[in-house]
Amino acid sequence: MSEFDLIRRLHERINVVDGDGPSACVVGIGDDGAVLDIPQDRQVVVTTDTLVEGVHFLDTTQAQSLGHKALAVNLSDLAAMGAQPAWFFLALTLPAPDLSWLESFARGMGDLAQSAGVVLAGGDTTMGPLSITITAMGLVEPGTALTRDGARNGELVVVSGQLGDAAHALEILKAGGMPGRKSRAALESPVPRLQLGRQLRGLATSCIDISDGLVADLGHILEASVAGAEINIDLLPCSASMAGLPGGQRRQFQTSGGDDYELCFTIPVSRREELDRIAKECACPLSVIGKINTSLELVCTMNDGNVFVPQGGGYEHF
Amino acid sequence: MSEFDLIRRLHERINVVDGDGPSACVVGIGDDGAVLDIPQDRQVVVTTDTLVEGVHFLDTTQAQSLGHKALAVNLSDLAAMGAQPAWFFLALTLPAPDLSWLESFARGMGDLAQSAGVVLAGGDTTMGPLSITITAMGLVEPGTALTRDGARNGELVVVSGQLGDAAHALEILKAGGMPGRKSRAALESPVPRLQLGRQLRGLATSCIDISDGLVADLGHILEASVAGAEINIDLLPCSASMAGLPGGQRRQFQTSGGDDYELCFTIPVSRREELDRIAKECACPLSVIGKINTSLELVCTMNDGNVFVPQGGGYEHF
Repeated sequence: MSEFDLIRRLHERINVVDGDGPSACVVGIGDDGAVLDIPQDRQVVVTTDTLVEGVHFLDTTQAQSLGHKALAVNLSDLAAMGAQPAWFFLALTLPAPDLSWLESFARGMGDLAQSAGVVLAGGDTTMGPLSITITAMGLVEPGTALTRDGARNGELVVVSGQLGDAAHALEILKAGGMPGRKSRAALESPVPRLQLGRQLRGLATSCIDISDGLVADLGHILEASVAGAEINIDLLPCSASMAGLPGGQRRQFQTSGGDDYELCFTIPVSRREELDRIAKECACPLSVIGKINTSLELVCTMNDGNVFVPQGGGYEHF
Repeated sequence: MSEFDLIRRLHERINVVDGDGPSACVVGIGDDGAVLDIPQDRQVVVTTDTLVEGVHFLDTTQAQSLGHKALAVNLSDLAAMGAQPAWFFLALTLPAPDLSWLESFARGMGDLAQSAGVVLAGGDTTMGPLSITITAMGLVEPGTALTRDGARNGELVVVSGQLGDAAHALEILKAGGMPGRKSRAALESPVPRLQLGRQLRGLATSCIDISDGLVADLGHILEASVAGAEINIDLLPCSASMAGLPGGQRRQFQTSGGDDYELCFTIPVSRREELDRIAKECACPLSVIGKINTSLELVCTMNDGNVFVPQGGGYEHF
């Protein structure tokens, strides 16, 4: 099977729509590049993320989960920018052409692409150690993209969803165990918070997705905003499996686990009451866990008032 | 060194300009995504290509060459579309952080980026087997992008530059030898035909870059255009090292070698005289090597009138 056949096959499986519509893909798969029509009143948001076998996922990960997750981690970045997903480009490196693996991979990716309204517009398929790089493009009204640098003293720190389950599931899998269904789904099928990201335009003063762990990613907001924060870890909502862990272990997963793909953002105190409506519309819990201050430090406290110091900070690739 | 530091460092080395100007990058490195302002009278052309160690380059390849080539192969795709390069996104997977390697890599990439006027607007750095995926974005006036599907019966087949030297250099290197300087440069420092691609807008009826070998890539034009062609291989200009090879070997490199990054395109017979001016302006030989016909086949002939049948056709990854 040629590279062309492979990409066409992936394209057919992944794209249910052909890209006609407001964000038209004029030339798609099968030329040297895709040609895209950008609506005049939009900026383009671009993000790229790579998943490497053995680094970002276990070699036992199912192809369907991998297809989903490779796209999800990129869409999560678009969510954190408040962008509407439009197109993505798939660079897939495979040890060998395996049709049944590809079918499953394309199914996982295609289901998410369809639900997110994003179109595969191009790609490259090569032979080599298993690795997936996706470049995703979204659209945003000019000047409304959410960035990391707008957090100001006194603003509230908010987190969506529940944290820690993905890291917990990974630890169980690495030890040869079998995590519960919900924890495993958090690890393998994270749902990017696209609707939430869109709702936060004009409200959040800064936003990031929690892929490297809450402490590391909130740290990026603080660094970009030249600010500090104090957060109470025990204000984070817990899944049942998290709640069953010893407190120290739970807090460690929740602050530094990574792979959560929830959004962490800041809002002015005066707009706190808008959170309830948004949480309802997005069917997603939103928890106020602390406040921005001028300290240039991030301090994590617990319900008993003591400070919690996460081990090792956030996840860094190097 | 954190992923952030690494990307910032690459960014500093690669970007001499900061992206201000007509194609502004409003938000760049250091957020979840880049935010791009697209001029209203432009379409966006996007292409993505991966280079994997041991598949697309030898493990002895110098970091500086690799930095150049990883960007060059993507810019070559933009050239084949007639697009003006604007931004690129670098997904770099490295076995380990090696600062001196990165400095060289960034120098090779940065020099080409500067000469091509393209800005590194984002990326991802991960640990794993050495591999580079670049997504390059260019701009083109609406409706003027060069595609593969417009070749019509009777039109001329034209090729830029000289073919075969990159494949010849690779064969010598694989055998433990040392190719000549020019052949090695063709392999390691190909120069994307960006100016030529821009000049071909409104002239070429189809265009492709010859990355997989002339026969394979002209074959893609014929397939997309539902056409055939007859070309005379001996009309291709030869480098000195190609000219020194036995005819069969030379023709094999020139038809099927791959890694040439020249442009192959078709033009109406009536516009043949425009080629001289363009060749002069682009400082690049343009050779008419044959004609499009209705046969749905690609036939390669030689000066003696006999048919040349390339072994194995073009390069396919699978």
